[in-house]
Amino acid sequence: MKVVKFGGTSLADGTQLKRVFDIINSDVDRKVVVVSAPGKRFQDDIKVTDLLLQYAQATIDDTDTKEIIQEIKQRYHAIADYFQMPHEHLTQIDAQIDHLSQKHYRSFDYLKAAFAAHGEYLNAQLIAKVFTHLGMPAKFIDPKDAGLLVNDRPLSASLESSSYQKIAQLDLSTSERLIIPGFFGYTARGDIATFSRGGSDITGAIMARGLNADLYENFTDVSAIYAVNPNIISNPLPIHHMSYDEMRELSYAGFAVFHDEAIIPAIQGGIHINIKNTNAPDEPGTFIVPPTEVRHTKAVTGIASSNRFAALYLHRYLLNREVGFTLKILEILKRHNVSYEHMPSGIDDLTIIFDKSLLVQEQIDGMIADITEEIKPDTLKWLPNYSIIMIVGEGMRNRVGALTEIVSPLSKQGISLQMVNQGASEISIMLGIQPDLSDKAVSAIYNQVFTD
Amino acid sequence: MKVVKFGGTSLADGTQLKRVFDIINSDVDRKVVVVSAPGKRFQDDIKVTDLLLQYAQATIDDTDTKEIIQEIKQRYHAIADYFQMPHEHLTQIDAQIDHLSQKHYRSFDYLKAAFAAHGEYLNAQLIAKVFTHLGMPAKFIDPKDAGLLVNDRPLSASLESSSYQKIAQLDLSTSERLIIPGFFGYTARGDIATFSRGGSDITGAIMARGLNADLYENFTDVSAIYAVNPNIISNPLPIHHMSYDEMRELSYAGFAVFHDEAIIPAIQGGIHINIKNTNAPDEPGTFIVPPTEVRHTKAVTGIASSNRFAALYLHRYLLNREVGFTLKILEILKRHNVSYEHMPSGIDDLTIIFDKSLLVQEQIDGMIADITEEIKPDTLKWLPNYSIIMIVGEGMRNRVGALTEIVSPLSKQGISLQMVNQGASEISIMLGIQPDLSDKAVSAIYNQVFTD
Repeated sequence: MKVVKFGGTSLADGTQLKRVFDIINSDVDRKVVVVSAPGKRFQDDIKVTDLLLQYAQATIDDTDTKEIIQEIKQRYHAIADYFQMPHEHLTQIDAQIDHLSQKHYRSFDYLKAAFAAHGEYLNAQLIAKVFTHLGMPAKFIDPKDAGLLVNDRPLSASLESSSYQKIAQLDLSTSERLIIPGFFGYTARGDIATFSRGGSDITGAIMARGLNADLYENFTDVSAIYAVNPNIISNPLPIHHMSYDEMRELSYAGFAVFHDEAIIPAIQGGIHINIKNTNAPDEPGTFIVPPTEVRHTKAVTGIASSNRFAALYLHRYLLNREVGFTLKILEILKRHNVSYEHMPSGIDDLTIIFDKSLLVQEQIDGMIADITEEIKPDTLKWLPNYSIIMIVGEGMRNRVGALTEIVSPLSKQGISLQMVNQGASEISIMLGIQPDLSDKAVSAIYNQVFTD
Repeated sequence: MKVVKFGGTSLADGTQLKRVFDIINSDVDRKVVVVSAPGKRFQDDIKVTDLLLQYAQATIDDTDTKEIIQEIKQRYHAIADYFQMPHEHLTQIDAQIDHLSQKHYRSFDYLKAAFAAHGEYLNAQLIAKVFTHLGMPAKFIDPKDAGLLVNDRPLSASLESSSYQKIAQLDLSTSERLIIPGFFGYTARGDIATFSRGGSDITGAIMARGLNADLYENFTDVSAIYAVNPNIISNPLPIHHMSYDEMRELSYAGFAVFHDEAIIPAIQGGIHINIKNTNAPDEPGTFIVPPTEVRHTKAVTGIASSNRFAALYLHRYLLNREVGFTLKILEILKRHNVSYEHMPSGIDDLTIIFDKSLLVQEQIDGMIADITEEIKPDTLKWLPNYSIIMIVGEGMRNRVGALTEIVSPLSKQGISLQMVNQGASEISIMLGIQPDLSDKAVSAIYNQVFTD
């Protein structure tokens, strides 16, 4: 039995959904289907989830919602019309869209969660009907009935581990395919709470683990995960096999194909993941498997980079003599509700690296003011733009010379680094670099490591 | 005016003290003399400070002190006898040694501090008399009268900054040399408190800053600070000039010639330091100066290594998603009164590096038990032996390729690293390595960087 998950682009319109139908219909093992909300049909299109969030905001602001409601309905209508579905099905979906703004919510965050989740919720309902209509019996399964119980964080929920027992009881003996909306679950009080954005991957992984699937097929719009960002290197090498840990580290630094949190249920259940292309379903794609099942011929599996960081540099003489010094800094961070990513230290120096997408200016200002006041550093520098490059490979674990191979091409090209962090992770090397040098550095490393 | 400081080996016996006398006598600018306790006269000799600490322990344990008292007295007698000093001077010194065990102390730590400080205290008294006896008028100055006020940590005191005003008032207009014992000061309540071991360097730096000396000459038993430990590389290159910051980083990782805390008063006062050899006083030695006054021709100034570390490795999936995670670990460390040195982190990995000389087994066990219980890591490894190599050079600040030059010889020789930490400090690269590979790595780097 396979759990299959389709992303937003694969479900953006009728043409795409027909491909999805054919993929599922071609293999009886594709029993459990997790679906995203309809995504972009073309470059500047808007995802249904984003339309729903606009609708949520208009509801909060009490401004006119007529136009946005119409736009959302239109997306589902277009799909139904493509398959010439009877209009009674659309009436139900329309009613649910209208009703969203009438319900009572525990907070604005729960409101936003419920609106956003309806992208998947309604799509799963519609898709079950479309598939049945096309001659492949399918049944919509509400995550509530599947047993997806989550904690009380409305917009970044985590699964309660008790859910797996419930999921395991799902009846798979029927002839119908089971269509489950991704991205959300229900709290103990019955409220909808979503995983973080892109969280349908997580639902798929949870279902695969809970049902102990033979394979979790994750269909997206690329034929493989590539060893490097194709926007930096054209026609990069595909990765055929990689380990869970490699995927996780690459996701962290910008590989967005597969949601990094979705790897955890797969690890826990030992579930094999296969990333595949909806538009080229016969391509082998990328397998993500336990580390013991990976045989690499190269030290490096992939190179990821991300510009989403910022850094704070501190220098104070005899800093390392002071017990509780870092504790004091972390307490300041906590006071401003700031989380940090890394904290490399020298003797009298400390650099704190942040994910700037998680920070607002007020937090930055408050944190810097308090550190200046309470820590009295001799030097304090705020670097608003900071990039991280991760060079990842299970093969690096015991391989000598990996670092040399990576830094040599950089020095040859005169690219200087702001940070080198090797050894914290056994399978990766982390580089800190000025954002404007990042792509050049990635190219240099890729060309050294992957082309002989 | 120069402040000169002599280490324990330079004052170990009469022969050595005669050399010290000649050095001071040859330059009228050598006005303020800071002295250590008599050190080792030969390889297996015991330093007077260590004898005094044995005496302290015997006093605490209330065991027989007769023999140890005799041994301590003997060391001062031998010096006095060498110069055929009148015995009345020794009577005073003997009385002070006897009296030590009779006094009341605020705590055992204050007791130990007072006993240990008498190594310097009595030596300074004796030396002032010897110098005067030899025809160079000299006056003993008690740190209390010089104004060395310190905080309430009996065995690792820090100077109160108000001291500098008092020190500046010291009368330098007399014809006498001023002999000041190093290593200790007095608390506001009048108790003796010592700096950390080797702290006479600190007293010298404090006096040089307080008196705004033209130069702080630090006499020891080597003709220069070498670019690498002479026990690893025979006849290494001497360092002629280096910056304060370079010295500080090299001290941290094992360069023991100059106490790392002693650099701070020098920095604050912009005092030039000259490390010189008592047995070869005409050699230029090593100058330690402000960074702006250093002109390097090589990227690397020195390579230091130290085996005094231990490390704890933690792995837990989604570790970096958890706000306050490191805070929780640091609170556990604080609970066990454990301070740490560095904490490099990966995505789901964290390594915490400790100075094992500051840890006892009970603390390690307690900390590991609490981390296991409260953090529940997927993997936890304790590495009881961990070495750090520091490659230090002001010239590395903006130099591309320094890292390549350093790691290439290691990979050529098949030496693998446990950690590479570059960028936290602007003038150094820190490597973590298994202790048994450390010397080999240092040799490989030295040969690459210093020999063309």
